[in-house]
Amino acid sequence: MNTAANSAAPPAGPGQASPGQVWAHVGQSFTPQDYDVVVLGAGRMGSALAFYLRHLAPQLRLLLIEEGGLPNEDGATLLAPGVWTGWGVPEDRQSQATWTREQLETGFGNISFQARPLIELFAEGGPDRTPAADALAPFPDALAMVDLEALPFARVDAQAATYRPGALALAAAQQAVKAGADLMLNARAHAVLSPEGRGGRVAIERLSVTNTHQIVVHETHHLRAETLVLALGADGPHAAEHGLGRHTNHARAYRQTPRLNVPSNDKTPTLRVAGLTLRPQSDGFTLIPAVHHRDPHGYSPTGGHLTGVPTGLRRETLEDLVALMNALPPLGTEALGLGRSISDIPGAWLALPGGQPGGLPLHQPLADGVHLLLGGPQADTLGLAVAHDLAAVVAEVTERPWKGEAHPAE
Amino acid sequence: MNTAANSAAPPAGPGQASPGQVWAHVGQSFTPQDYDVVVLGAGRMGSALAFYLRHLAPQLRLLLIEEGGLPNEDGATLLAPGVWTGWGVPEDRQSQATWTREQLETGFGNISFQARPLIELFAEGGPDRTPAADALAPFPDALAMVDLEALPFARVDAQAATYRPGALALAAAQQAVKAGADLMLNARAHAVLSPEGRGGRVAIERLSVTNTHQIVVHETHHLRAETLVLALGADGPHAAEHGLGRHTNHARAYRQTPRLNVPSNDKTPTLRVAGLTLRPQSDGFTLIPAVHHRDPHGYSPTGGHLTGVPTGLRRETLEDLVALMNALPPLGTEALGLGRSISDIPGAWLALPGGQPGGLPLHQPLADGVHLLLGGPQADTLGLAVAHDLAAVVAEVTERPWKGEAHPAE
Repeated sequence: MNTAANSAAPPAGPGQASPGQVWAHVGQSFTPQDYDVVVLGAGRMGSALAFYLRHLAPQLRLLLIEEGGLPNEDGATLLAPGVWTGWGVPEDRQSQATWTREQLETGFGNISFQARPLIELFAEGGPDRTPAADALAPFPDALAMVDLEALPFARVDAQAATYRPGALALAAAQQAVKAGADLMLNARAHAVLSPEGRGGRVAIERLSVTNTHQIVVHETHHLRAETLVLALGADGPHAAEHGLGRHTNHARAYRQTPRLNVPSNDKTPTLRVAGLTLRPQSDGFTLIPAVHHRDPHGYSPTGGHLTGVPTGLRRETLEDLVALMNALPPLGTEALGLGRSISDIPGAWLALPGGQPGGLPLHQPLADGVHLLLGGPQADTLGLAVAHDLAAVVAEVTERPWKGEAHPAE
Repeated sequence: MNTAANSAAPPAGPGQASPGQVWAHVGQSFTPQDYDVVVLGAGRMGSALAFYLRHLAPQLRLLLIEEGGLPNEDGATLLAPGVWTGWGVPEDRQSQATWTREQLETGFGNISFQARPLIELFAEGGPDRTPAADALAPFPDALAMVDLEALPFARVDAQAATYRPGALALAAAQQAVKAGADLMLNARAHAVLSPEGRGGRVAIERLSVTNTHQIVVHETHHLRAETLVLALGADGPHAAEHGLGRHTNHARAYRQTPRLNVPSNDKTPTLRVAGLTLRPQSDGFTLIPAVHHRDPHGYSPTGGHLTGVPTGLRRETLEDLVALMNALPPLGTEALGLGRSISDIPGAWLALPGGQPGGLPLHQPLADGVHLLLGGPQADTLGLAVAHDLAAVVAEVTERPWKGEAHPAE
């Protein structure tokens, strides 16, 4: 069998590789060829996988396919909080988290990485908790947002940092292309298992937009992937089941990230109260509500009412914010962007690995040469390590750059 | 102020009371009058409240209003499992559970009460667990349903019993009418807070069905209730918020109860595995899936697909059943009624008190003289005690028929 690898150019180190091809729109003609690796989805997980794979196995011909742009406007990457924190990371994954933080800081150029403490506030005391007044004293702007009588206690993650996951995805994809990966944007891919018994076959619909703003299929191509990776975020489990016939136990939840227009700057800490994260961003705050559990299949997000007035926030999120209005008084003011309908509030479907709101990023074999790669709620802290781990699996590299511990696959 | 109580007939014991009036259809003319107590909803909670209130305070004029029949075909009562068990009841509510069991056995005539053990099966051993083979030995039909290698351990609630919650609601409402309660069926009620400062005003729309099967409002009446109780099941919290402007922390979940056509009889135990209850009923089993968490506002139940084939079971329930197919082999056969669309599988919205899947029944003051009464997932075991407790509160009776403990209101 004449595999794509056999027909590829001789292996070259990433430094010497010539850049890959990019097909950004249907005007650029594409001649289908088979690939060693096809990655579906150029969010941060798929892009990081492509990036690491170009470095670990430059001899493998690689195609990264994305339905939208870099990153997809409708995907979870662009709206991810971008808050790195060691809290909630199991002991045996701490060195992966540490490695991810180093990568975020230095591995991808400017992705707005910023060391920034995370301060969690509590109504009750406990181990590791200090008076909130002390923890917030260096940050008068944050202090002014909190009712210290309602939230007198705090703990601080001084190692926390923030960055822009969308910028990470863009940088990773661009550097992967620079190192030889091919990239196709605005293309919808449907994968099926390969009749050859390994990897998959991919039908690619190149999309264009009519002058009445309809998305139409311009042309369809078929190609074979010796190794196929689904890095489709919340859509990945559905693609695994419907395209490949592989059931998984993953689920998804719709998360909105409303805006709180209270001033912030580079020094403002990230705050967390009762699972709600207040992430300083663009001179204000982005609110990241807790994910309590999966949303049911068939759920269409819809705005809830606040004492009869329609808003753009889903009911459950509205309830969470209303419950915190006393402890965080700005939530009870016009600084909170409620919107009037669901389209007014940024929101995206988030994968829940294992169906769990605290599910860790993972990769998982679906068939011989077919992998599912999932980020989910903890992708900010562990996503790069899991993408790297899958790259190493595909490249058949046994070493990992972090200190020895459990394989992150399930 | 001339209250309804003042204009009522002289108090009479329940034995001597003349029966109340019943308006079952719009052909029976109704002249609105004010009532001391109006109960919205004649499911088991509202009907039991009416029943106990006629006995505790026969001097109070009482009207029970139900949108459908007895009980409502779309309500949770008719599809409730009707499994009484002491498992999961907090220590300080055990005597209420015991009292409820006595009431179910003797208080309402024939409601198909049947002492019937509940056997829970486990993959792992633990305290109070015995070999499943021993626990199931007396029940060969149940034994034949279980893979003992997958589920080798069991615990038994020998005090458990089953009954028909729909028959309970019917009996309670009928006996309340016999004891003097008025009852209006096929009438939709909208309640607002009373401008007089206590109780509520109720707009009653008497419904009829056209010969094209449309439900139309035949006539509308208004009356005042000195005490108003919302016993509307999963619709109660919505009525509290939108009609009365009172926010609550309750939620709801859509629960389906598919059928498993494996023979059962009066001696067959109720089985439980991983939260799924298999309740012997009508020569087969009714499956009652676990409620994992609330469903979001705006969710419309829809059928899921099983390897591409549309079914009437919602996706989450399908996943739960698929996960148990090895342990309970009949689930993997045609004995399981999957249906083809959501309308093929009986299902109803269930109130979740406090938003919790394990929330206990409760009553709660919403305003002066206005109460919310909620059953929820534990109503089979504790519902009657909570209905009685609210009846006693309304009747201003301090004693309770069970031994002293916490008031069940929140």
